[in-house]
Amino acid sequence: MPRPAYPDSSEALSLNSGYAFPGIFPDLTEAANRALTTYRSESLQYGRPFGLPPLREWIAEYMKEDGCTVTADEIIVVNGAKNGLDLLCRLLTEEGDVIVVTAPMYFTAIPIFKSFGLTFIEIGQDDEGMDVEALDRALRERVNQGLPLPKFIYEVPDFHNPTGITLSRRRREALVALATRFGIAIFEDSPYRMLRYEGKSEPSLKALDAHGVVFEVGSFSKLLAPGLRVGWIAGPRALLERIARLKSDGGTCPLTQRIVFEFCTAGELRAHIERARAAYAQHRDLTVAALRRELPEASFAVPHGGYYLWVKFPPGVDTEIMTERAFRGGVSVIAGVSFYAGEAAHADPETAPTRYIRIAYSRATPEEIEDGIQRLAEAYHSMI
Amino acid sequence: MPRPAYPDSSEALSLNSGYAFPGIFPDLTEAANRALTTYRSESLQYGRPFGLPPLREWIAEYMKEDGCTVTADEIIVVNGAKNGLDLLCRLLTEEGDVIVVTAPMYFTAIPIFKSFGLTFIEIGQDDEGMDVEALDRALRERVNQGLPLPKFIYEVPDFHNPTGITLSRRRREALVALATRFGIAIFEDSPYRMLRYEGKSEPSLKALDAHGVVFEVGSFSKLLAPGLRVGWIAGPRALLERIARLKSDGGTCPLTQRIVFEFCTAGELRAHIERARAAYAQHRDLTVAALRRELPEASFAVPHGGYYLWVKFPPGVDTEIMTERAFRGGVSVIAGVSFYAGEAAHADPETAPTRYIRIAYSRATPEEIEDGIQRLAEAYHSMI
Repeated sequence: MPRPAYPDSSEALSLNSGYAFPGIFPDLTEAANRALTTYRSESLQYGRPFGLPPLREWIAEYMKEDGCTVTADEIIVVNGAKNGLDLLCRLLTEEGDVIVVTAPMYFTAIPIFKSFGLTFIEIGQDDEGMDVEALDRALRERVNQGLPLPKFIYEVPDFHNPTGITLSRRRREALVALATRFGIAIFEDSPYRMLRYEGKSEPSLKALDAHGVVFEVGSFSKLLAPGLRVGWIAGPRALLERIARLKSDGGTCPLTQRIVFEFCTAGELRAHIERARAAYAQHRDLTVAALRRELPEASFAVPHGGYYLWVKFPPGVDTEIMTERAFRGGVSVIAGVSFYAGEAAHADPETAPTRYIRIAYSRATPEEIEDGIQRLAEAYHSMI
Repeated sequence: MPRPAYPDSSEALSLNSGYAFPGIFPDLTEAANRALTTYRSESLQYGRPFGLPPLREWIAEYMKEDGCTVTADEIIVVNGAKNGLDLLCRLLTEEGDVIVVTAPMYFTAIPIFKSFGLTFIEIGQDDEGMDVEALDRALRERVNQGLPLPKFIYEVPDFHNPTGITLSRRRREALVALATRFGIAIFEDSPYRMLRYEGKSEPSLKALDAHGVVFEVGSFSKLLAPGLRVGWIAGPRALLERIARLKSDGGTCPLTQRIVFEFCTAGELRAHIERARAAYAQHRDLTVAALRRELPEASFAVPHGGYYLWVKFPPGVDTEIMTERAFRGGVSVIAGVSFYAGEAAHADPETAPTRYIRIAYSRATPEEIEDGIQRLAEAYHSMI
């Protein structure tokens, strides 16, 4: 196969972003047609602050099937999960507040949290996910020192971004119990939850929450398509009412909400999720196989779902330099350093951010994955 | 015509909101169909922080036809004008900052500004709009007293909400000159500008701005349909880059942006605007005629465009009580007190907020307007 030259950086093969695979984008023309004819007066008018009532009912039902006890009253529709995080920060934090995050963490959330002047308690992860015992120690120490407790714990419990790790059952229970004991909110951000390729789901943190400490931030971006910009927050009604007042956007787009609702209630969502699972599982398998073949020096845990591989390189490799070389060689991946809100992980050479990269296998085609991993291997071999 | 009983408050005739008239909602099915087939990969993927490039080009061209010197680089797409105001406040203000507003003012902007901890310099209006000389005196006084200058001046220069007044040409020139001299930004929020029913447009503030002090906050809500949630900010590129970084929403919905673009470039916008003008001009005329017939005691200036009548009642009428009675009588309008950010107007009995109401004639049908004004007159007559 002739290899394109990628003279322009914008043409680099992208293994860098959690974009969806266009090959599985659903056909929404029928749903849009209904939204713009039968429901025209509703779809083109200002929307309601809480969102489209039947969509909120649908989301509550969807969450109930996932083991959560919620009603439509406890759902507010927002412009995607990032908008949800932003609104929750507005509601619950003040400049200078401390929050708990993992190290590494979802890197797009870092500037959102920093824009509110928040500071970070970084907690490491092992193969069971966030080290809840370390968090417990950190919180006790703050209490002993008379320091204020964090305002919330931010966690991606399923197929964590970037590590791909799924929080174990006992850690989930421990985390919710700890948050309840200390009276700290949890922001559960779980966009990849339905994209499990094997094994059995653990209960969501929200499902384990008997005391209303968990806000679940949901999204149709990974479930259906990111371009719709429809997500939600599930949480205590009284707090959602305050969020509704904070929403400055004149209501999340009623047209796209109706399109989502019409598609989901036409019974097409399950089949779509199955197509997405099959495509992304194939992408993951191809990426894993290509890495093992081309880069046996790299190590990683194979995630059971989601979009990402968190790949570790031998000591002495600086992945900031390597990703720059890879980019010039025609493939774009993200260096580990981008995924840390603070400095906690930098001290230990074993877990140094400069030893990691994140590979996103979601968007690329199988051919691009093969080609991309070869180019990445070339960049690595040029380093040693 | 038998009159419905309106036993449920939610069924009150609505003359209270700047909602669009559903009778003129355009047929967007073709535009949506193209967006979801030809442009599916773009419409359903994450969007760009600055917005869809061809739509930004279109907006720049649209503004150029309106006399502004802007390029697509100086346009960022946002989730409607309210989202634009929110982003501008995030960019330019800090808690405790002072801003300039009119008294009365667009009431939905008040909680947005207050959520940023802003305080207000309120400037009155006459039949030429904002009293720019009074603003000049207020600013000089602050300078003399060593007080910080306001961060921005917020103005709706065309068919002002709620007063319906259009800022005169000489006031526009004076306002831009003053803002330039003091180095204060202007947020020009002009959603009704294209909805002129008679007379000649004045140049926009942005068109008069040679020094980059004006941010124009634009919207397709009144131009096309509010449910699309597509608006824009036009301003200096360097500041828009900072706004792009503040956007937490993962990019404004690329699907609705594409729908807007396809509709506008199919040459359907002009005809749609003409239909909107004709409908709203009729609504205005009906409202004016009904008020003159049913409520000759009320006084108001007839606006040359837009959605609103700002109606004044004789001394001694408390419009807070009157609107409550009107609501129980089956029609909803908004009492004047809602339109003031501060207390400046409360001192003078001649301009007391409790003497005013805002009537929005945009959404209601002609029959509802007739019925609603009758019910309003009944509420008024029950007061005297």
